Amino acid sequence: MLTAKELQRVFHTEIPITQTMGLTVSNLSLTDIRVCAPLKPNINHKATAFGGSLYAVAVLTGWGLLYNLINQEAGDLHIVIFESTIYFHLPVTTNFCAVCRIPEEAAVDRFLRVLRKKGRAKIALLVQIITEEGIAVSFRGTYVAHR
Amino acid sequence: MLTAKELQRVFHTEIPITQTMGLTVSNLSLTDIRVCAPLKPNINHKATAFGGSLYAVAVLTGWGLLYNLINQEAGDLHIVIFESTIYFHLPVTTNFCAVCRIPEEAAVDRFLRVLRKKGRAKIALLVQIITEEGIAVSFRGTYVAHR
Repeated sequence: MLTAKELQRVFHTEIPITQTMGLTVSNLSLTDIRVCAPLKPNINHKATAFGGSLYAVAVLTGWGLLYNLINQEAGDLHIVIFESTIYFHLPVTTNFCAVCRIPEEAAVDRFLRVLRKKGRAKIALLVQIITEEGIAVSFRGTYVAHR
Repeated sequence: MLTAKELQRVFHTEIPITQTMGLTVSNLSLTDIRVCAPLKPNINHKATAFGGSLYAVAVLTGWGLLYNLINQEAGDLHIVIFESTIYFHLPVTTNFCAVCRIPEEAAVDRFLRVLRKKGRAKIALLVQIITEEGIAVSFRGTYVAHR
């Protein structure tokens, strides 16, 4: 299992634009993750967070949770995003964080079982960006893990 | 109507992270747009383009086409992304471009009619990132324009 700081280092090293975004991992466990970014480097023409930055933080939040889970489980696997849908409910006018919680145990068990057996499996994760006004962004992504 | 260079300046000024991404607008008309980015600043752990950067380029490609259309039509309107779905069919291993073509005339006429009448209207756009291997990314976004 990785620490939050270790995962943050993975992001900054492997995906350099996350440094410009100011991405930080503030919490990481096998079941939960919280990834944050400041507004300023991610700002848009309306002085709110750019949709592309919100997407980037959301997609990495799900990826990070899965990476930590699989790293524990199997090691040396690849994880890629296959498809995703994102809703922008409210503008984000402050620094922001995205959270993701592992799905129910049965879905995770099935994912890990198929991954072990076939060397390839997919799983859907829900990521949310929650501000003081409520749920600002909902992201649902299907990730594929493979050898 | 804006030139490609003028729209590129809008992106770089209003959404500063597009400068780090190296975003360029290579073609712009009232019906078509082409937005490009180099691989290097947008690279990920697999030496392919980061999904967050691909999303950012796609969402801005649709936004730019709409901005140019509306700028011509009405001026002083806001455009925001409401929801979108993106598919990653193939990894992007080179510099890349996203293209978007205006939908059929009836949909655009309806969008502009509702916008004039109610001061708010939405429209769905399809953006694709096409590489030598074929369609690498398909993005479908619903944008809202409002006063």
